[in-house]
Amino acid sequence: MTYDLIVIGSGPGGFDCAVEAAEYGLKVALVEKDFLGGTCLNRGCIPTKLWLGATSAIDELHNQAKMKVASGEVNIDFAALQGRVQKHLVGTRKAMAMQLKKLGIDLVEGFGKLSGEGKVDVETEDGTVTLEYKNLVIASGSKPIFFPGLEPDGDCVLDSNMFLSMETMPTSLIVVGAGFIGLEMAQVAHRFGAKVTVIDAMDRVAPLEDPEVSKALRSTFKRWKWDVQLEKRVSGVKTVDGKAVLTFDTRDKIEADAVLVAVGRGPVTSDMGLEEAGVTLEFNKIAVDETLQAAPNIYAIGDVNGIIQLAHAAAHQAHYVAARIAGKIDGDYASGPVPSVLYGAPEVMRVGLLENEAFLMDHENCETSRAQMAANPMAQAHAATQGFVKVVWSSGKVVGVTAVGHDVSRLTTPATMIVQQGWTKDDVYGTIFPHPSLDESLLQALKAEKKSV
Amino acid sequence: MTYDLIVIGSGPGGFDCAVEAAEYGLKVALVEKDFLGGTCLNRGCIPTKLWLGATSAIDELHNQAKMKVASGEVNIDFAALQGRVQKHLVGTRKAMAMQLKKLGIDLVEGFGKLSGEGKVDVETEDGTVTLEYKNLVIASGSKPIFFPGLEPDGDCVLDSNMFLSMETMPTSLIVVGAGFIGLEMAQVAHRFGAKVTVIDAMDRVAPLEDPEVSKALRSTFKRWKWDVQLEKRVSGVKTVDGKAVLTFDTRDKIEADAVLVAVGRGPVTSDMGLEEAGVTLEFNKIAVDETLQAAPNIYAIGDVNGIIQLAHAAAHQAHYVAARIAGKIDGDYASGPVPSVLYGAPEVMRVGLLENEAFLMDHENCETSRAQMAANPMAQAHAATQGFVKVVWSSGKVVGVTAVGHDVSRLTTPATMIVQQGWTKDDVYGTIFPHPSLDESLLQALKAEKKSV
Repeated sequence: MTYDLIVIGSGPGGFDCAVEAAEYGLKVALVEKDFLGGTCLNRGCIPTKLWLGATSAIDELHNQAKMKVASGEVNIDFAALQGRVQKHLVGTRKAMAMQLKKLGIDLVEGFGKLSGEGKVDVETEDGTVTLEYKNLVIASGSKPIFFPGLEPDGDCVLDSNMFLSMETMPTSLIVVGAGFIGLEMAQVAHRFGAKVTVIDAMDRVAPLEDPEVSKALRSTFKRWKWDVQLEKRVSGVKTVDGKAVLTFDTRDKIEADAVLVAVGRGPVTSDMGLEEAGVTLEFNKIAVDETLQAAPNIYAIGDVNGIIQLAHAAAHQAHYVAARIAGKIDGDYASGPVPSVLYGAPEVMRVGLLENEAFLMDHENCETSRAQMAANPMAQAHAATQGFVKVVWSSGKVVGVTAVGHDVSRLTTPATMIVQQGWTKDDVYGTIFPHPSLDESLLQALKAEKKSV
Repeated sequence: MTYDLIVIGSGPGGFDCAVEAAEYGLKVALVEKDFLGGTCLNRGCIPTKLWLGATSAIDELHNQAKMKVASGEVNIDFAALQGRVQKHLVGTRKAMAMQLKKLGIDLVEGFGKLSGEGKVDVETEDGTVTLEYKNLVIASGSKPIFFPGLEPDGDCVLDSNMFLSMETMPTSLIVVGAGFIGLEMAQVAHRFGAKVTVIDAMDRVAPLEDPEVSKALRSTFKRWKWDVQLEKRVSGVKTVDGKAVLTFDTRDKIEADAVLVAVGRGPVTSDMGLEEAGVTLEFNKIAVDETLQAAPNIYAIGDVNGIIQLAHAAAHQAHYVAARIAGKIDGDYASGPVPSVLYGAPEVMRVGLLENEAFLMDHENCETSRAQMAANPMAQAHAATQGFVKVVWSSGKVVGVTAVGHDVSRLTTPATMIVQQGWTKDDVYGTIFPHPSLDESLLQALKAEKKSV
């Protein structure tokens, strides 16, 4: 039998693609070498959110205690939390497997490798199985990458996968890499009382964000007494006598119970027979055309194509590819604005263009407007008033929104719709935002006086 | 001097109207008999949200403790909380007063009464001042109403104003009226450990909401061991020997430390010289035409016109009236969908039509689709998985959304935009929702199979 579609990888991209294609009536096989759900579910977004959710009372209590409104203590049983995470993952994978079964999708467990025209060899536990396809979707995702000398040893030097599998939370933690992954995990360690050090080679934390967002985050970390070391190069990390020892290029050393290396993620493309099948790799990423095709009838979606490393982007690409293969749509892929979120407290959200990006595109007609979180009653209610919302306008239309502060993730979906629709000032009065709500901080920023960049 | 505009009442409607009119360059006076900000700020939404925010750690801890992930305790110092509320209100009123000053708006403190063609008498501390206007906006708001025998005595029988001013939280509380006001306040008392009894004459709690929402709330209250008594009529409440004693029409009695009577709010229209000025009152509400005018050049906005008792609706009406008086817009007032929110945990949100309303309007083409909160990873992360999102469709377009569960207030703004734009199934794939997010519960409900009503 030849499958209409074989999907390699069952993360948010691959799983959704398989499901939607099957819903269109296609015969589908889904190849997964590890756990159903991929990195996002098993070793990424979801476990981190379960950690943040479980510890949110600590942060809420802390804020109210600072105002002398609350006292007490919240203790989290880390082993119990890890048990709950596992139970959630097992349950979710089970539900996913049932959905596959219901839709008649064949789940083939093993490492998939392209093995000639229209063929995939899967190394299963019972030996190699050869599957045939009319269409192939590669959604093999990404994995942590390391600079030389920073490779995790699984003892005290950890990557994000190992960090999420720990049995105890370290009492001191060094995080190398001040991006979203490192910062979310550092924040959890902080809630557990760990002494946190964050190191980055760049001159600011969250270096992909608006510089004012980085500044706001850094000021929070300072209040938390984090040791944030910027513009620092790390030459090596290793476990010595049960401690992680980190050496800077200056030969200075620091140590902690654990080091988390979170300097980035790279596509999973090795040993998959990709180039032999006519797929082009660029810095390990699969190059795709405007229809997300890497070669005729071979598509690549999600982290592996290097467009953007976000689960919801992968799922959106999956929807396009499934519909395209089913013959339901034609034309090029267009994502629309893709939001990104740092969860925790404070949170960060961003969608569309940053101020500097908009300025580069449209020097003369670029403006910003903003609101401070301190003016919002919900931020006040949670005694977490730091931060701001910034709206970026180009020629009178909203082209970007970014925010940092308490619960600002909730601005993400409205802001995405607003950027997508290119709201003008007049549109702002067309929609009623609930009062009181944190959402009103976005409304205030939209209504505020615009200033030229 | 004749003012271009006099506004009576400085709640969310009146204040915004005054500010926006002044920004258009009009000369404005704002008349307020009590505190700047009106009920919402001083005796309503805002103090309640500060209470809910300050106590949210209790709820978060409780949920994680149930999963055996967390232990500990959170104690809230009620007196300190009340102090913080007052500080917030004073600060907000000060900021509002500064904004008025900056815009050249005259704040006239006292009771305003219409006193003849184009005149308002204000009874100030220094005697009566007569102001003249070209346009008048009445935004005098609403106040708690009572059935005979249920009038508050300020001792153990309280209305919502008195409840918010208490010096200690009662250890047992009876709430008469299971609407949003009563339920938010009962929830705070519950977090403080009070034994809660809720009584309503209707056959369900939150009787204005979707019946399934009422059912979900009741099931939560049952888990909390609340005594919910429905279809019960109360014949009287009074303070006896320092206890509140409530008598049913069956002559059965129950008692508690306090009774909160929250059976509704009615417009403030008494003794204002309204009818003499040509304004028509219907059941105490000011009748308005399609331009929100009650008489030539006399407008009524917010709770007092009885259209809908919500702060953000008042503010939206204010925007229209200010622009209209300034000659910037013409045509009738159109609100678009007005969302409503119950805060706390669980939360409830609703915008547009309920299922039964849509069915009445369009029998043949009314459908619903839904998602359970248990399927959402953020609900799982907060160990609060009860509830659902329901989307109501009419002839293939979204006409309503309602939800109950953890943090569902964050669905409100996106849902309002979706209802306003009348999304079809195809639109659902056009916008990228962040993953993971609670917002995805709305996305799942939008994508789910539709069923005829």
